[in-house]
Amino acid sequence: MSDRRRIYLDGNSLGPPAPGLAEALGRVVDEEWGGELIGGWNGCGWWELPLSVGARIAPLLGAASNQVVVGDSTTVMWFKLATAALGLRPDRRRIVTQSGGFPTNRHVLDALDADVVAVGHDEVVDAVDASTAVVALTHVDYRTGRRHDLSAVTAAAHEAGAVVLWDLSHSVGAMDLHLDAAEVDLAVGCTYKYLNGGPGSPAFAYVADRHLSAIRQPIPGWVGHTDPFSMSEEHAPAPGVRRLLSGTPSVLALRALEHALRAFDGIDLVELRRTSERLTEHAVRHADALGLEVVTPRDPEERGSQVSLRHAHAWEVMQALIAEDVIGDVRPPDLLRFGFAPLYTRFTDVWDAVERLAAIMASGRWREPRFQQRLAVT
Amino acid sequence: MSDRRRIYLDGNSLGPPAPGLAEALGRVVDEEWGGELIGGWNGCGWWELPLSVGARIAPLLGAASNQVVVGDSTTVMWFKLATAALGLRPDRRRIVTQSGGFPTNRHVLDALDADVVAVGHDEVVDAVDASTAVVALTHVDYRTGRRHDLSAVTAAAHEAGAVVLWDLSHSVGAMDLHLDAAEVDLAVGCTYKYLNGGPGSPAFAYVADRHLSAIRQPIPGWVGHTDPFSMSEEHAPAPGVRRLLSGTPSVLALRALEHALRAFDGIDLVELRRTSERLTEHAVRHADALGLEVVTPRDPEERGSQVSLRHAHAWEVMQALIAEDVIGDVRPPDLLRFGFAPLYTRFTDVWDAVERLAAIMASGRWREPRFQQRLAVT
Repeated sequence: MSDRRRIYLDGNSLGPPAPGLAEALGRVVDEEWGGELIGGWNGCGWWELPLSVGARIAPLLGAASNQVVVGDSTTVMWFKLATAALGLRPDRRRIVTQSGGFPTNRHVLDALDADVVAVGHDEVVDAVDASTAVVALTHVDYRTGRRHDLSAVTAAAHEAGAVVLWDLSHSVGAMDLHLDAAEVDLAVGCTYKYLNGGPGSPAFAYVADRHLSAIRQPIPGWVGHTDPFSMSEEHAPAPGVRRLLSGTPSVLALRALEHALRAFDGIDLVELRRTSERLTEHAVRHADALGLEVVTPRDPEERGSQVSLRHAHAWEVMQALIAEDVIGDVRPPDLLRFGFAPLYTRFTDVWDAVERLAAIMASGRWREPRFQQRLAVT
Repeated sequence: MSDRRRIYLDGNSLGPPAPGLAEALGRVVDEEWGGELIGGWNGCGWWELPLSVGARIAPLLGAASNQVVVGDSTTVMWFKLATAALGLRPDRRRIVTQSGGFPTNRHVLDALDADVVAVGHDEVVDAVDASTAVVALTHVDYRTGRRHDLSAVTAAAHEAGAVVLWDLSHSVGAMDLHLDAAEVDLAVGCTYKYLNGGPGSPAFAYVADRHLSAIRQPIPGWVGHTDPFSMSEEHAPAPGVRRLLSGTPSVLALRALEHALRAFDGIDLVELRRTSERLTEHAVRHADALGLEVVTPRDPEERGSQVSLRHAHAWEVMQALIAEDVIGDVRPPDLLRFGFAPLYTRFTDVWDAVERLAAIMASGRWREPRFQQRLAVT
């Protein structure tokens, strides 16, 4: 066992719990659920949680608050919005996306009744043509940390008459975003990375105000009905972003996320982004000094809040680093990935992490057999 | 404020929290998530939770444990299995369901590429023909409490070459079920009613072993991939029931459900069902004595674990009853609904509830204006 301080550089995969969460959830269980029972849906505002928590995320997206809702897993929400996006361009079937993105996004697109064209980061804009219904992209690449120019790609898609669907999983909570100003159509994101909502916390969805009355999603359910307690068998979508909901929302998961979001109260996102740029800049410079191959763009404008390094034995090096209480992760085939969450990562964390990495590289002790063992979940 | 003991007869809508849940969740937050961070997916068994919690539900369904998985809302899981069911009979497009069922089930079926035929409870078997792909039914009706003969309907569907999809939301946790013995194909259910998983807790899905390798669901995602950490962009469904999963499961929601399910350890389901029959029998008899119209079947074989009464002013009567600390609910247009959860409802609860109802009816005080106010969520 090491007596060193743990340095957590994997908040881009799973953020840590906010202080006081256990107590807050205890109150939800004992006072809200135990105290109000079925009455909690009205009396404790549970029914409105998907919208009220969405309204807390909206400022982090640069969005007016009526456009954001929370619910389902990120994959399910991506499915809903990708289907809805196609519905906004019924005379077109082509979806342009990026190759090498996070697998779940591609799995979902490939299962739709559409022609999916996957191209490299730099070929996206050229691939958009007059037959393109949707440009569906992840803003920050989960492996390389490379970032698209959200405004420019959105504008190019619009010029061709397409709608854009952005996955902001590796963006939200680590930088300023301006969805309304960029005239983004649709967006989805994960809340358990930089937003610290907890393992498997629900996704958010953004629908631009101008699309709210037209949008249709593929899993119409009672919670997205305009008058759910009429118990009408005919589905009539709720006005606004509520129509994206299907089944009963998880109150425990929403309350946990709501608690986590308080950490962003009063945070200046431009300042947060500046911190992120400086943290990643430090990491890049130190990696250079160690002679490691940096795959994340050196221009801060082109990257998110992570730094990825290529090493033929990425797995073993990361296990050796974890043994020294520096927690990052690996992505196949050969990337070491370090996330810098500007809300809580300190400059000294970068220093200390690099120092421990330098020692591992210098000693070559990542070659020890114990660091070769594979885990089910990485 | 009444100083009377609260009698909760709405566990068929939302079950109460199990003792010790707040502390259990506190440990998940502080020790598992806070202690292990990203390592919790391996180290705390999070990745396996959809299956391990599913295996705890399996005995309540009369099912071998490899056939049950937990995840998504009930609506989303119903969508997945209804789509999967159609996929098992690709040369047929007809779905037979029941009219007047819970709206969300119908909304989802109507959105599928299929011909939905909705008939009354007694007409279901006759409506199944050689063009029928799927018979999709709720076992116990959410309004009347009337129960289908699960084995007989399943057998009739099979005789016509159709597959059956049962919604067990108002069954599981209140009675013995025998899905394997009845050769049910597919089933879905809610876990926040008689299973007490918490407001909006995730659904379960059952897929008979013989269908596991053939089944395909419409939202393929990375968590249902056979090798998720290969990060392959091509989807290859996991072997077994895991393939029904799409996105990252909510650990907080799953741990809460897991805790709740412990209350069923060692419970004899036949005995539980007998208790349920006796509780509802008492309620029916007392309602008769009060001259109220009982819409729930008098033959215990034909009902679930609730009793519904018809009254032209159901809303006002229920509000007056709630003011006397008897919690039931109403369903439009004119039903008072009382759920009897045999795990914790006592015979004295039935007595006391009826006594208070009798007093309200005798005095006519449900006519007071304060009982007419409507709530958003009922």
